[in-house]
Amino acid sequence: MTAQKIAIVGLGKIAKDQHLPSISRHDGFDLAAIASRSASGLDVPTYEDLETLLKSEADITAIALCVPPQVRYDLARLALEHKKDVLLEKPPGATLAEVHDLIRLADENGCVLYATWHSRHAMGVAGAKAWLAGRTPTSGRITWREDVKHWHPGQKWIWEAGGVGVFDPGINALSILTEIMPVDLHITAAELTFPENCDTPIAADIDFQGPKGFAMKADFDWRQTGKQTWEIEVETTDGTILLRDGGATVLIDGKEVSSDEALASEYDGIYAHFADLLASRTSDVDLSPLVHVADAFMLGKRVTTEAFYDEQ
Amino acid sequence: MTAQKIAIVGLGKIAKDQHLPSISRHDGFDLAAIASRSASGLDVPTYEDLETLLKSEADITAIALCVPPQVRYDLARLALEHKKDVLLEKPPGATLAEVHDLIRLADENGCVLYATWHSRHAMGVAGAKAWLAGRTPTSGRITWREDVKHWHPGQKWIWEAGGVGVFDPGINALSILTEIMPVDLHITAAELTFPENCDTPIAADIDFQGPKGFAMKADFDWRQTGKQTWEIEVETTDGTILLRDGGATVLIDGKEVSSDEALASEYDGIYAHFADLLASRTSDVDLSPLVHVADAFMLGKRVTTEAFYDEQ
Repeated sequence: MTAQKIAIVGLGKIAKDQHLPSISRHDGFDLAAIASRSASGLDVPTYEDLETLLKSEADITAIALCVPPQVRYDLARLALEHKKDVLLEKPPGATLAEVHDLIRLADENGCVLYATWHSRHAMGVAGAKAWLAGRTPTSGRITWREDVKHWHPGQKWIWEAGGVGVFDPGINALSILTEIMPVDLHITAAELTFPENCDTPIAADIDFQGPKGFAMKADFDWRQTGKQTWEIEVETTDGTILLRDGGATVLIDGKEVSSDEALASEYDGIYAHFADLLASRTSDVDLSPLVHVADAFMLGKRVTTEAFYDEQ
Repeated sequence: MTAQKIAIVGLGKIAKDQHLPSISRHDGFDLAAIASRSASGLDVPTYEDLETLLKSEADITAIALCVPPQVRYDLARLALEHKKDVLLEKPPGATLAEVHDLIRLADENGCVLYATWHSRHAMGVAGAKAWLAGRTPTSGRITWREDVKHWHPGQKWIWEAGGVGVFDPGINALSILTEIMPVDLHITAAELTFPENCDTPIAADIDFQGPKGFAMKADFDWRQTGKQTWEIEVETTDGTILLRDGGATVLIDGKEVSSDEALASEYDGIYAHFADLLASRTSDVDLSPLVHVADAFMLGKRVTTEAFYDEQ
């Protein structure tokens, strides 16, 4: 198999920490170019923007878009118009309607479109899905509390309209939830807490409902210092499953279960799946995590809290 | 053809003003029962709630849900579980996820599910769609300004989370827009104005973008006294179309165009379409207007304005 020539657009924290190492570890991909205003010191051709890159690097077949969601649509459309296969960082767009439009364009142009949800590739997720498949959930909780200053230092876009705030990590929990749950849930109530100087929430409390009286609560908070918590717990009529550490660890009825998978990282899982999608010429765009986020904003009560300052 | 035995659930303003008269005018429907806590003086059997109605009226085949969106899901699910065909007032739900769930359940149970958008049945909409079909839109505007105190007196639910505020009329404009436009649009920015004592916005300014530089703005406002304005204007490379009076009147390049249709009301159009769907056993659930509303809430900047009081 010839390696796919891939380009990265947007060389921010996530591209440097995750995409570059995972691409370099996968034999199926050959990093051929980067479009970024700030790239330097890399041994691949670098361009100011995607348009210039596409003109100069005609043999690139795939584009990984690692830019913030507010500017992703125009770049994705440009790549698809040039008949490139496209990988989207999460969330796949700032709106649902723009992703619906990208799905249609990819389909028309015969391109593969892949909306990634990196947390679905955490070690315990596949096992949790299999365990829950035969069971009846009765209740559950999500606790997703982290320190935004540690994980998103200086990232202004997360506080600007369209940046979705605490749903940026929260959507990771929702991407796991929608993957593992054997029934469909919807939000019945939400309370979103906005710092008085920000356009996106710093915390959210969400009530979910499912069939036969199933109910669960999600607690997303970006103000957690000290121990960080990323947990999903689901009680069923036949035992309780707890995903800890963002899905990396699984406990069933309190006992830790070892995983058979041995991926080096969630992003290795993403690129392994992207290689499969490219080989079978199949798109994979599951919008259900973003639908829950949009629903929470549409349905949610808003409360205002003290101003947030990144540097203190 | 035997008339379909239909029941109305929720006898509020919209049921009394629109559903009852349109059902009585349509030969294909026979109003057989009503579920409402406040119904009286009607010559059909009336029940406290849908559950009681379903137990007593086994031969009813269709249910029209005219309750507020916050409580619609549980009732729709109950009706579908009893294998009834279901008509949903707009918006079809308080969240997108719950409507996705209803679509699946209707499909599983072989029921017809119809998410109505009454403004799509305004006189000028079909003609506007046909006129735009062969043209390239370049820009547009929506101006949807009305007096909430006149149209929604005492309706508390519109100000409660999930009631969507000014998007309650605004979604009528969006339902026309998504019906007539030959291209797909998405929201790029929004500003939502919340009264300081309300959980839903009283005004919204929205920017839409489409292919090839197409841009349009929507201005929704519930504080308009005096003349009421419900207009959609689209400029194309080959003329301009203006829908006035909520789609009842159409002007092309400034000249009023007469309509061939002669429906007595938008809701007559709804029940005519519902009869067609029942005859062909087909569902019709287009979520695109509600997707735009959810996108506006997810992407929108919030500003706070003076408190709103219904009675003054």
